[in-house]
Amino acid sequence: MDFIPIYTKFIETEVSKLQLPNSPKLLYEPIRYFLNIGGKRIRPMMTLLGAELFDLQKENVVNAALAIELLHNFSLVHDDIMDNAPLRRGHQTVHEKWNSTIAILSGDAIIIKAYQLLQKQDGDLRALLQSFNKAAIEICEGQQLDMDFEEREDTTIEEYITMIRLKTSVLIGCSLELAAIIANCNEEDRKNSYDFGVNIGLSFQIQDDILDLYGDPEKFGKQIGGDIIANKKTMLYLLAKKNASKEQLIKLNKINLETNSTKKIDLAKKLFNELDVKRLAEEEATNYYLKALYNLNKINVLDKNKTKLKTISNYLLNRNK
Amino acid sequence: MDFIPIYTKFIETEVSKLQLPNSPKLLYEPIRYFLNIGGKRIRPMMTLLGAELFDLQKENVVNAALAIELLHNFSLVHDDIMDNAPLRRGHQTVHEKWNSTIAILSGDAIIIKAYQLLQKQDGDLRALLQSFNKAAIEICEGQQLDMDFEEREDTTIEEYITMIRLKTSVLIGCSLELAAIIANCNEEDRKNSYDFGVNIGLSFQIQDDILDLYGDPEKFGKQIGGDIIANKKTMLYLLAKKNASKEQLIKLNKINLETNSTKKIDLAKKLFNELDVKRLAEEEATNYYLKALYNLNKINVLDKNKTKLKTISNYLLNRNK
Repeated sequence: MDFIPIYTKFIETEVSKLQLPNSPKLLYEPIRYFLNIGGKRIRPMMTLLGAELFDLQKENVVNAALAIELLHNFSLVHDDIMDNAPLRRGHQTVHEKWNSTIAILSGDAIIIKAYQLLQKQDGDLRALLQSFNKAAIEICEGQQLDMDFEEREDTTIEEYITMIRLKTSVLIGCSLELAAIIANCNEEDRKNSYDFGVNIGLSFQIQDDILDLYGDPEKFGKQIGGDIIANKKTMLYLLAKKNASKEQLIKLNKINLETNSTKKIDLAKKLFNELDVKRLAEEEATNYYLKALYNLNKINVLDKNKTKLKTISNYLLNRNK
Repeated sequence: MDFIPIYTKFIETEVSKLQLPNSPKLLYEPIRYFLNIGGKRIRPMMTLLGAELFDLQKENVVNAALAIELLHNFSLVHDDIMDNAPLRRGHQTVHEKWNSTIAILSGDAIIIKAYQLLQKQDGDLRALLQSFNKAAIEICEGQQLDMDFEEREDTTIEEYITMIRLKTSVLIGCSLELAAIIANCNEEDRKNSYDFGVNIGLSFQIQDDILDLYGDPEKFGKQIGGDIIANKKTMLYLLAKKNASKEQLIKLNKINLETNSTKKIDLAKKLFNELDVKRLAEEEATNYYLKALYNLNKINVLDKNKTKLKTISNYLLNRNK
């Protein structure tokens, strides 16, 4: 666990070294703001750790790692507009601090900056670009599915998994795949690197759903119960729906219509507790975590090269923020 | 001139052959809609004609040409949200036909698709990506400057030229530069290709400013006088301001405050006519056109290879839509 702050620090330093122009101020100031309000930096860390699997150094993959972090931040800035989210990482979102126009345009500039970083990365650029593009377009597809689900009442757990795979997990897969491409490893190791990331991503997102309601408001950095307020079909919600009696289903539908946010969150929590959905969701998260470990075990490198990825996987499963 | 419809048709066909998925419907349907409502396809045509300079065929640069067209369309979809524009190419804009959320996300997917096309383009991918990224980020900078100018009263003609160079012209420069990179020509020819495009772009944008007020509403496809209504500091406006007497300046400031759109457009047109700004703006457009021809002449290829680019440059200068 001790290595995590070292890697986070490395990424923070590299992010702060990104040479963004000062002008136009309203384009670059929001980018500087958003990139520097922190975040867990999980994705670029996965690229750095993915590189170490194959005996590469952080410095060999730093541009790819930053490209991944910027792609992630691009999607957050735009998603926050679409979701009308006031807070991110405990700070005002870009569209709240400035406005939607500024958030659209500075988000656009962030993804282009991501491609500028990728262009500077040593390695098979065509393969890197292909992997990166695939993840980027899938993130958009995932975001659209997520919004579609808000309008639907019949979303299944399977469809939900497809959605979070696209919206969240493929980027973590890509984080590791870029490192594998740069390391020029064989197809099988590349695929296992990617799949490890995707499964960690699924586990991570289910954990995120749990934390949205059960997290510590001081540590979580987002509005607690935000998913409930927005009627999001999260893993908690879908498990509740799947396991609910007829009476409980009626209650759940009533909760969706509740307009008082505090009351809505309390009612949802009460029903979810009755149905034990927190534990059921934790089981789902653990299942994907175990699949990820299976992928990691199959990668043909020394066990000692896998230690940090194992540690971080465990940390992500048991995190409280 | 006869060749133009052939090239447009080629591009239309290639655009229609883009294999976009059907699902998620609300992500891909707006993209399909927007890419198929036409447009002049000037930028991809420049890539095709730029390739012919160096004896390449359309087919050799088609992915780059499409990437350019998609980058352009991405910026239009997002700019239309920011500018609150109801019409584009005579059709509803994406945010009008659907909503802003859909327009943000489908715009995002369009730029990623652009990078997917670029990734498929034969040639020095690192050089292609660098040129493309530079144009893309400059387009964002230009859009921000354009919006900044709306809040300012002291914009100079020089600053305006910087803004349209970024917002419009660099992409036309890039259209030709990508072809030059694919043709693997020398640095000097590559630079002249780029500069030719940038100067054509400046001439084109000034012409666009003129058409915004003096164009034929049937042919123009956008709202006539839209720039006046939005208090845009266009070449017409800046020339008027530069040449206005004290009395005329007072009139101009009053026009900015006028809330009745029809009256506002009429008053502006009357003042602009008094100051002969249409002719002055046409002179500016012609100057950049001549600079472009100078760049084209310096490219070290046979004169016959330049004929089509000369024809299209002349056509763009004298267009009425």
